[in-house]
Amino acid sequence: MKIGLDIMGGDYAPKATVLGAIEAYKALSADQKLVLIGDKDTAVTILQENNVSPDHFEFVHTTEVIGMGEHPTKAIVQKPNSSISVGFQLLKEGKIQAFSSAGNTGAMLVGSMFSVKTIPGVVRPAMTTIVPKLKGGLGILLDVGANADCKPEVLLQFGVLGSLFAQSVYAIQNPRVALMNIGEEEEKGNILCQATYPLMKETKLFNFVGNVEGRDLFSEGADVFVCDGFTGNVILKLAETFYVITRKKQFKDEFFDRFNYEQYGGSPILGVNAPVVVGHGISSPEAIKNMVLLSKNMVESGLVDKIKQAFQ
Amino acid sequence: MKIGLDIMGGDYAPKATVLGAIEAYKALSADQKLVLIGDKDTAVTILQENNVSPDHFEFVHTTEVIGMGEHPTKAIVQKPNSSISVGFQLLKEGKIQAFSSAGNTGAMLVGSMFSVKTIPGVVRPAMTTIVPKLKGGLGILLDVGANADCKPEVLLQFGVLGSLFAQSVYAIQNPRVALMNIGEEEEKGNILCQATYPLMKETKLFNFVGNVEGRDLFSEGADVFVCDGFTGNVILKLAETFYVITRKKQFKDEFFDRFNYEQYGGSPILGVNAPVVVGHGISSPEAIKNMVLLSKNMVESGLVDKIKQAFQ
Repeated sequence: MKIGLDIMGGDYAPKATVLGAIEAYKALSADQKLVLIGDKDTAVTILQENNVSPDHFEFVHTTEVIGMGEHPTKAIVQKPNSSISVGFQLLKEGKIQAFSSAGNTGAMLVGSMFSVKTIPGVVRPAMTTIVPKLKGGLGILLDVGANADCKPEVLLQFGVLGSLFAQSVYAIQNPRVALMNIGEEEEKGNILCQATYPLMKETKLFNFVGNVEGRDLFSEGADVFVCDGFTGNVILKLAETFYVITRKKQFKDEFFDRFNYEQYGGSPILGVNAPVVVGHGISSPEAIKNMVLLSKNMVESGLVDKIKQAFQ
Repeated sequence: MKIGLDIMGGDYAPKATVLGAIEAYKALSADQKLVLIGDKDTAVTILQENNVSPDHFEFVHTTEVIGMGEHPTKAIVQKPNSSISVGFQLLKEGKIQAFSSAGNTGAMLVGSMFSVKTIPGVVRPAMTTIVPKLKGGLGILLDVGANADCKPEVLLQFGVLGSLFAQSVYAIQNPRVALMNIGEEEEKGNILCQATYPLMKETKLFNFVGNVEGRDLFSEGADVFVCDGFTGNVILKLAETFYVITRKKQFKDEFFDRFNYEQYGGSPILGVNAPVVVGHGISSPEAIKNMVLLSKNMVESGLVDKIKQAFQ
């Protein structure tokens, strides 16, 4: 297996990404090779500074970088030699089996849809995040920003994507899928939720458990929380802020520790024809390592094939 | 001034409400009279048990109660002798100058629109909550659930309502109004935000400071956060959960203490022709006291007249 990593992406790249690659390498087996995509000379220098042989990695040298603030579609088109563009080219050609980056989220999303493309039958890919549960374990929240406006059938598909992800990568059996709403009763919510509920109630594609509210995100009632990308993104950023505040205030706690984005590595883009993970812009080496390992787990679990089958 | 309080509303009513009324009474001046609406005998008994003379209060006896789970519109129509229905009748007739209840939120919303009615020019009244700022002080979030689906012009009006509320009741000068969004740039967001931004940018009705994200809710950049009621309700309930978790985990902290709903008493319904406040279902006596005092502050500040003028 070859696992691609954009070493130019993220606020602390390439140092944090190469250091993260070193940590990931230690956790990979002999037949799992990390392909570092970016400025090769810089990467080799960082590896040597850390007494790690460059022979442990493969390199694909690139000469351009897509900045965090660049317009995704324009950047992907105008910078064919950027680490993100090249990474997706390799992924498309099957030269790597997974690709991850802590760089420009929009470019990762657009790149994945332009290159490996959306799985036939999937209307819109979704971005996913992990939410810790109060009593241990985790939940899956999607979409967290790829689709600000969603139709009911798109939310229904997110239920399928999230359910398969929870099952395949996190070994959650028969995941309970809930609709994020503003009341528990069937008729509650905005027009989108009101139209989505009956679809989810009827579906045999996943185990729908009904509506939940913002207060239920960390509780035991559901494993997968489905919402439009606007709501999901607000939730994600609000939850991140709480984590940051508890850290600043030095509240040490096992639950809050599990909010640490570093532990889960990044947000997979679900619904495209290959495992793609987007890391947090501020990714540390620990986060990069876990992003790589998440992309590896997505390959090993055969998630993409399972999604393809579900949408056949 | 006569201030109406529904003593039957809330999970711990009538005990918590009457005890709250006692606390509120202590904070009111001689010309501010609390009117207790509900079962008079029970109220008098609770007052006497606490060695408080019933003479300090006025009573309007009612024989029905709208339950927390009842359908708002049906309940208001079918229970004319309920404490909420009678409260709004008194408010409409000018026999009380403000009305508050920790009972059925929907019934409070419907009741206010049926009785005192929406201020001419206001498309939809909004429900409001307070969010504490990390560095002290507070922000205003609206709508938090009265309007799950909103049009751009409605969000624009929420900006006016929130701005006047912040200014009148919390003495925030020239309040900075922000649009809750999923990116800071003008073109970011869902269709609603993309259509609202230009309206807010052009308006002279308040001091618009642009888009903010979920992570900015407790920061210094804005005083009023505008969003649709779906997003606001998810935010509110998620924030409440964080507060509950920090309490359970016994993280004592001045910032988290200020999340305590008891301190701010309740959510005003802005945009109707009289001061109306809805308390949290689990309201304690302290929360009831502050709900009453908030409704009093709304009267004293002349907020309703200011809103009327703004929409003339």
